[in-house]
Amino acid sequence: MAKTDKEWRLRIGKLKAKVEKLRSRLDERAATPAAVAKVKASNPVSPLAPKGGFPALPVIAGVEFAAVEAGVRYANRKDVMLVRLAPGSAMAGAFTRSSTRAACVLDCQAKLAGKVDGSAGAAIIVNSGNSNAFTGAIGQTAVDEVTAAVAKALDMPVSRVFSSSTGVIGEPLPFERITAKVGDLVYALDEGGIEMAARAIMTTDTFPKGASAEVQGEGGAIRIAGIAKGSGMIAPDMSTMLVYIFTDAAIPAAALQKIVSRQIDDTFNAITVDSDTSTSDALIVAATGKSSAAPLSDLRGKVAKEFEAALASVMRDLAQQVIRDGEGATKFVEIDVTGADSREDAHRVAMSIANSPLVKTAIAGEDPNWGRIVAAVGKSGAKADRDRLSISFGDILVAEKGWRNPAYSEEDAAAYMKADTLVIRVDLGLGKGAKRVWTCDLTHRYIDINADYRS
Amino acid sequence: MAKTDKEWRLRIGKLKAKVEKLRSRLDERAATPAAVAKVKASNPVSPLAPKGGFPALPVIAGVEFAAVEAGVRYANRKDVMLVRLAPGSAMAGAFTRSSTRAACVLDCQAKLAGKVDGSAGAAIIVNSGNSNAFTGAIGQTAVDEVTAAVAKALDMPVSRVFSSSTGVIGEPLPFERITAKVGDLVYALDEGGIEMAARAIMTTDTFPKGASAEVQGEGGAIRIAGIAKGSGMIAPDMSTMLVYIFTDAAIPAAALQKIVSRQIDDTFNAITVDSDTSTSDALIVAATGKSSAAPLSDLRGKVAKEFEAALASVMRDLAQQVIRDGEGATKFVEIDVTGADSREDAHRVAMSIANSPLVKTAIAGEDPNWGRIVAAVGKSGAKADRDRLSISFGDILVAEKGWRNPAYSEEDAAAYMKADTLVIRVDLGLGKGAKRVWTCDLTHRYIDINADYRS
Repeated sequence: MAKTDKEWRLRIGKLKAKVEKLRSRLDERAATPAAVAKVKASNPVSPLAPKGGFPALPVIAGVEFAAVEAGVRYANRKDVMLVRLAPGSAMAGAFTRSSTRAACVLDCQAKLAGKVDGSAGAAIIVNSGNSNAFTGAIGQTAVDEVTAAVAKALDMPVSRVFSSSTGVIGEPLPFERITAKVGDLVYALDEGGIEMAARAIMTTDTFPKGASAEVQGEGGAIRIAGIAKGSGMIAPDMSTMLVYIFTDAAIPAAALQKIVSRQIDDTFNAITVDSDTSTSDALIVAATGKSSAAPLSDLRGKVAKEFEAALASVMRDLAQQVIRDGEGATKFVEIDVTGADSREDAHRVAMSIANSPLVKTAIAGEDPNWGRIVAAVGKSGAKADRDRLSISFGDILVAEKGWRNPAYSEEDAAAYMKADTLVIRVDLGLGKGAKRVWTCDLTHRYIDINADYRS
Repeated sequence: MAKTDKEWRLRIGKLKAKVEKLRSRLDERAATPAAVAKVKASNPVSPLAPKGGFPALPVIAGVEFAAVEAGVRYANRKDVMLVRLAPGSAMAGAFTRSSTRAACVLDCQAKLAGKVDGSAGAAIIVNSGNSNAFTGAIGQTAVDEVTAAVAKALDMPVSRVFSSSTGVIGEPLPFERITAKVGDLVYALDEGGIEMAARAIMTTDTFPKGASAEVQGEGGAIRIAGIAKGSGMIAPDMSTMLVYIFTDAAIPAAALQKIVSRQIDDTFNAITVDSDTSTSDALIVAATGKSSAAPLSDLRGKVAKEFEAALASVMRDLAQQVIRDGEGATKFVEIDVTGADSREDAHRVAMSIANSPLVKTAIAGEDPNWGRIVAAVGKSGAKADRDRLSISFGDILVAEKGWRNPAYSEEDAAAYMKADTLVIRVDLGLGKGAKRVWTCDLTHRYIDINADYRS
């Protein structure tokens, strides 16, 4: 039977709506290469990004930044940053423990371990787009060429030039594209360039990461400002977390290193997106000594303790921002373990939970599936007694002494799981070992991002 | 402008085709709760399932099987199985090392450790739908009630009745539903019931798993037949891998246990779906001694060695079937590590690769992303020298001595990755330590299955 135009149009309208709806649902979950490309191109900012964008960071006297487009791999964006540090700056660092770490990491470690004269200042040069990892002897050549070019341009010993690279593994680094731009970089050096630098080191991060703190020293303020990049290995073969923190504190390098080494475990070593350690993780802290405050010579002093706490807070803030930009993350999760036989055991249990794909998918599904937490505790290798174990979601006591809390309401727990920031508490009931780590959930977007071709 | 009916129909036809196409793509990736429910209801057989269905297993003299519908959790399906073993049967086992293991696991371990009189035979009772894990003291009561009911009905000491439970964690096991069916189970015992038993212990496995082998002994054949369930923690809160292997060999329990302990590392402990260890994994091997072949008293004898190899092959076959039914698996992957400083290091490297979410998603995307394998080697904690490391996909040499093989063709590697069975070889170039493990890829379906609500 013939229909009227209106009837035809109605039917077509309905079908079109159906197509749109199906399309948007498919887009949400982006699985075809084309859809993945689209999602990646749009690279929407993580829903967990700090509100208000990049924070206003204080200028740190004695630190200048520059960034340029060198075309290492990406077109039309700044991909190399340079930092110049004033003469007398103290340097400290912490690096990946991967046995296949990149040439630039080995180079930084050697330079920080050596006795060096800091009177000429220091520099940090970082490129994104290529990690210069697993590139054999040619990898070390690239590091040598880049750091030598910077040393020459800034008139400082090459032993004071640190470098990092982040991006594709196994491709030779086209270092001549970087050395060709060193002159431009030096020309552009500016005290106010920290946000630009934070953007230049991004690979597929969805937002630039910055944090700061201030401490009142004797005779003036001590300022700290830091930047970071990283979101796990968010793109198919990008990797690495890179962190640079600057302060105008006057502090000897050895003391600075001591603080960094002491604080790294509860900050950057307390986060995990997907349990995959990169070949290039690097944290470098530089202290220029330009503050009018008295030098921090004794770490047990009041100001030194405040400085350590402030530096730790910047490190923790940046570490948590990396989790907030975790690949496909929709939940920011704190795992808080107490009552372990030792601190090592607490760490083992916390990481076992944080890295469990079953716990992470349950969180993605907003399912208070505490049985998976029991299983993660059990597999951790830490000393645990089923009949002393307690588990809470936020303030909701789920299980106690080896069995479900009689007053536990699954409805309440399910409501709690809908929040975008969650706390999972586990008490082992054995001793005083405690550890807090941060992670994110495991979602379809993680698969979309990582199962895609590199091309 | 008005269109003709034909034009309208053409347009509607095209839109309908579009809707169908989008729907089928959505179905493939099933992300909405409704779609997940649909996919779970249909529970399609894994694409990696062995062709030809459940294998024809030999009857093992002295072993009878029964299965009934007890309604532990599932409706309209058999969910409890009973095995009766003839007097004189030797028993051996291997269990999860989880510190939060289930009551039935602890009970089996205690019974196998004790000196017992096997003259009365033995029994194994298994339910699906509830794992009786993390259920406190009431969990042990359930085990006691179930095993006592079986012991009474079969007229054997309770110390010879082994039990397993698989399913939800943290819910009390409604043991009276099982004890009420013990009479029916005993009545139904039958030598030919092994496939029915394999089906009764499935949770969300997509196919029942069986394997067999035969060895020529002195004076007759020795037969081995085994069944298994497991696919990681394929449903939101189901867990456990359960394996039961039967043989008519005449072999002392101590010798049988020795073989099982020796072979477990290269079979069931060499597989991983998602790195999450269950609270209930159990393997029980029973030898009835009913074969006409001479007893295997000396494990160094020719037949005993052949028997060990045959038992190992059944264990390996069942272990690989568990991987072939891994949650969301589309690829069966062998990781073959050689040249490690020690066997432990080889194991560490193999498991680090097999459990890396980035390696597993690359495999899902058919991407020969060898940089992620480098990173997984680096994070493993095993001794590794970047400049001695070689990596191959099948026979394609990807990287050698710390850098990409100059003759490597990404196109060839990408073509290789399209197969559903893959071999990744890593040679560390350091020593003689070697290890082979099996795993599967990490796909959208894993997220679909595990991020869904338990309801």
